[in-house]
Parts: sequence; C-alpha cells; structure tokens
Amino acid sequence: MTDITRIEAAAARMAGHIRRTPLLSSPFVDALAGRRVLVKAECLQHTGSFKARGGWSALSALPPEARARGVIAYSSGNHAQGVAAAARAFEAPAVIVMPADAPRLKIDNTRTLGAEVVLYDRATEDRDAIGAALAAERGLTLIRPYDEVEVIAGQGTCGLEIAEQALEAGVTQADVLTCCGGGGLTAGVALALEARAPGLRARPAEPAGFDDTARSLAAGSIQRNASLSGSICDAIVTPEPGTLTFPILQRLCGPGLVVSDDEAMRAMAVAFARLKIVLEPGGAVALAAALFRREEIEGDAVICIASGGNVDGAMFCEALARFGTGD
Amino acid sequence: MTDITRIEAAAARMAGHIRRTPLLSSPFVDALAGRRVLVKAECLQHTGSFKARGGWSALSALPPEARARGVIAYSSGNHAQGVAAAARAFEAPAVIVMPADAPRLKIDNTRTLGAEVVLYDRATEDRDAIGAALAAERGLTLIRPYDEVEVIAGQGTCGLEIAEQALEAGVTQADVLTCCGGGGLTAGVALALEARAPGLRARPAEPAGFDDTARSLAAGSIQRNASLSGSICDAIVTPEPGTLTFPILQRLCGPGLVVSDDEAMRAMAVAFARLKIVLEPGGAVALAAALFRREEIEGDAVICIASGGNVDGAMFCEALARFGTGD
Repeated sequence: MTDITRIEAAAARMAGHIRRTPLLSSPFVDALAGRRVLVKAECLQHTGSFKARGGWSALSALPPEARARGVIAYSSGNHAQGVAAAARAFEAPAVIVMPADAPRLKIDNTRTLGAEVVLYDRATEDRDAIGAALAAERGLTLIRPYDEVEVIAGQGTCGLEIAEQALEAGVTQADVLTCCGGGGLTAGVALALEARAPGLRARPAEPAGFDDTARSLAAGSIQRNASLSGSICDAIVTPEPGTLTFPILQRLCGPGLVVSDDEAMRAMAVAFARLKIVLEPGGAVALAAALFRREEIEGDAVICIASGGNVDGAMFCEALARFGTGD
Repeated sequence: MTDITRIEAAAARMAGHIRRTPLLSSPFVDALAGRRVLVKAECLQHTGSFKARGGWSALSALPPEARARGVIAYSSGNHAQGVAAAARAFEAPAVIVMPADAPRLKIDNTRTLGAEVVLYDRATEDRDAIGAALAAERGLTLIRPYDEVEVIAGQGTCGLEIAEQALEAGVTQADVLTCCGGGGLTAGVALALEARAPGLRARPAEPAGFDDTARSLAAGSIQRNASLSGSICDAIVTPEPGTLTFPILQRLCGPGLVVSDDEAMRAMAVAFARLKIVLEPGGAVALAAALFRREEIEGDAVICIASGGNVDGAMFCEALARFGTGD
C-alpha cells in the first residue's frame, strides 16, 4: 500500500535527482479564471513530465540485484522516458516496449536516454506476450505506469511539494486539479495532501469522452472508456482507473472535471502566453478545468498541476494559431 | 554605485515578491553543446522576464513620497511590464511612454498591469520631451532601463541565485552567459558573482550587428551600434553600453559572444523541445552562444540566463517550423 511514509521515503531517495518544480502564476491567468490560479509546472521536471518521479521512485526502491538485471516498461510516451532516465542514472538496463507506429521523436528520445526500445506491431503482435517473454528470459522487473505502489509514491512527492508551496503562497484551502489517466499522479498527490495539507483536495481532470475516472467516482465503481483513441490528450488516455489507484481516489478526491480537446488547446495557448511554459494537451487539462469550469470550483484559489510538455511543434503551433493568447 | 551590499538589500526587499527561478538542464542540451549546460529560466519570472527584478528594486528603493507621486519609464517591452507590475504592487501611479506602433499585445499587457500608457509618434514626436513634460507636471520619477543604480542592483539578484544554485549543482568554475542590451543584467550579475561565486564569470551574448558590448569590451571604450533596428532580438538592442554599466563590465566580464538571428531562433526551438520553456529571440541569445560557440567557451560546464519569453505566437512558431527540435 502507498501511504505518506512511503511517499516521504520516495522523496528522500529523490533528493538531488528530481527537480522541485516551481508554482507559477500570472495576473492574466487569474483574471481569465476568475480566481487565483497556482500552476505546478511539472513540464519542467526532468524528461518533461512528472513521470520522472515515479520512474525514479520505482528504480530506487528495487533491491540492487533486481535493479542490476534491469527493468521493462510498456509505454509510448512519458512513462517510457521516466523509466529510461532513472535506469540510466542507476546504470540499470531498461527495455521499453513501444508500438512501431509511435512518434519517431519519442522512440529516438527513449533510445537517447539509453533504453533498449523493442517495437511491436499493434495490429498483429501481443505487447504483453513480447514483454513477458523478455522479462522471463532476462529477469527484468516490470514497472507499471500507475498501478504500482512505488510509482504512486513517487508521483505523490509532487503533492508534498504542493503542500509546502501552497502554504508559502498563503493558500491553505483549495482544490488541486490533476491531469488524470490511470490515476497514479492523482492518487499519490491525494495521499500527500491528506497528510500534509488537509485543506487541499485533489480532483481529477480528464478529456471529454475519456472521463472514466470522473464517471467511476460518480458511480462508486470502476467504469471503462468506450474508446481508447481519438483524443489529442493521448498521454492521459487509459482504459479505466487502476485497481490500486481507484480506492485511493474514491476515499480522497472531489468530483472529476471534464474538458474538451479545444479547451485543452486553449489552455496550452494561455500557458505559452502568460506562464512561458510548454504544455502537451494531456498536460493542460487541469489548467483548462481551472480556466473553463470555474462554476464547478469553489474558493478564492485553485491549484492545478501542469503535468507534462512533451508535444511536437505542429500540435503546439496549431494551438497558438487557433487560440492566440487564449483570452 | 551598485555593489554587493546594494544587491543584497534589493534581494531582501524582493522576498516573497520576485520568483526564485529554476536552473534547468537536459541531457539533450548537454549533448548539443558538448558540455554541461545550466539554464537560468528568467522567462518564468513575473512579467515574463528578469526586468521584474529591476522594476521591483527601483520602486521599493524610492522614498515613499516620491513613490506615491509615481514613476515614468520609456519602453516598448519588458522594462515597461517590469515597472508597471512593481508600481501596481506598491499602488503607485506608473506612466509608460511607448511608440504608437508598438505591438498591440505589449500595449494591452502594460495597461492590464495598471499603467497609464502614453503613445507617441516615432516619426514626428520627441519621446524625451513628452516624458520630461509629464514628469515635471506630475512629479514622476524616471526609471531608466539599465543606467540606474537600483535597477542594476535588482538584476544582480539573479546573480545571487545563480551563485547558490550553481554550487548546489556542483558547478564552481564556469562562464555565465547573459543576454546583453544596455548591460544592466550583465553588470548586476557580474557584481553578484564577484562577491558570491568568484569562480563564475559573466560574459555578455549579443545578436550579430548589435554587438556594441562585445566591441566595446574588445576596444576598451564605449562603441555604438551602426543601426538600432533590423534584429529580431529587439528586447536587447540598445545604442551602446551604459555609462554606469560599462565600467562594471570592463572590470569583471569575459569577452563577449555574438550569435546570428537564426542561431537565436534555433536556441528557441531547443528550449521548446528540451526544456519546455518559451523564449523570445533576445532571451535566447545566451543559450544560442552556449550551443553554437562551444569553441569560444572553456570548461566542463556553462551557465546561461534565458532572460525573457515575451514573444508572439507567429515568431515562436516560425522558429519551430524552421528548426524543429533544434538538433
């Protein structure tokens, strides 16, 4: 079970390796949102997303013998880079199983971080079978992207920082909006806030059509998404909340918030113009919820996690061309 | 005279008002530059540039009676926003004299920050005469953009942070590249480093054709630029080094570095792809020098100040379209 003790242990293992990201703000963003907005800029984390926290936490928690044999992850995106970067730091072998049609840049980045990338054909090959065979053959440890105790603990360190930084900013009562896929970040942050800033409450934000967590929270049981593709917020599209994460979300989180793809892109434009940070669509949904769901949020202030910035120039510039400064 | 005592006094007045910006890095940037690169992300400062430091320092140093009468500045850009933001915080009137053909967005931003914007026609009107008349009539204090003791002290606080953050990162010997216009940032940072991190040396970076500071340092006397327009790095184009700043630069700085407009744009693309920050061309010249003048730099590490991010979407996307991830 992930708990505050495990989150603080992960934070101690990360010291000097994981960046304490800043809590940004702008009077222009406040004016748009109708209240004070504090933005935890996890896009500035190593590898461009909070996933570096979970990767570091998982690798650093492994017994040295297991770590020396290596790790394996399935990911076409941010989790791959988080695991690869941590493995490189520990000089541990890392195998990342990625679909052959993943963006070239993400494949190249993962390789440049020192991981062995194994490509498979989504149409004809079974990812899990390929991974299981490799893991058995080489004694690799599988690092799941969210349903993994030490990964949730690692993401929770972001919540420890928010608890401290919100207090420094004079905010003790607020919703903390997270960009939510499988719920690893949301669960970890919710646990950290429960222990260290009980006036702050985590709430998941998701793209429309892929709001499995919001619906699961409303229904009181795990609900699946009808589809697994078709959102530009690819980084946070998962089939359903995790079996480890959902009970934590259910106990601690407020209602989910849902935004459109266009609203996520408009939030990217606002972040460009007003905060000078680069967000990917999936990393902008929490800010989009703060900006465009003001009537679903209470209080004078809201905190949102800008969870990642791994976006290509074409998508980014489409957001700027369509939405200007987002006003 | 600006000295370390004045810089530390400015830092004390800023506490809680000016952001301690992060020192970012990426293995991809290191690989491109051929050495370790640490990037001081001043684009994340309030108002999107380091100019918020000088504005705050100058306003907070004024006698309360003078501050209550108000301040005036000539600027079409970052200095205007820095002064306006500080004046608003102190509830002091601020008048910003801007050319009528300044970008609409910059005029609007300055107004939204609470300043009174007075527009003049560059072709037919005399900016200084307009400003002097307003200042005399209302008792306003002029805040110059760089040749101003308390402004230099304010920019120097960026150097205090670099001294601490470089030590935390294990770097004690390195060049610190600054984006240099009139030399306020460079002079302030050089003074702070002299006192607090003597192994770090400031070096100005400038756009080709507007390298008055590099030529002045080489010649040992103030040299002017032949032209005052024609660079996309408009934020750091000034006629010549300041009379207060140049003696400081001459005593403390290493040789200047000069980059092309294209290299500045390529550095913007690298900062987008690898650091997830938004830089304007003038704010990217120091990073460009770190990336593309490696043979003019010595040592295992280099620090560069990414001084501002106030760029419009069209210019930014031109950089991404032309240079991709900058590799």
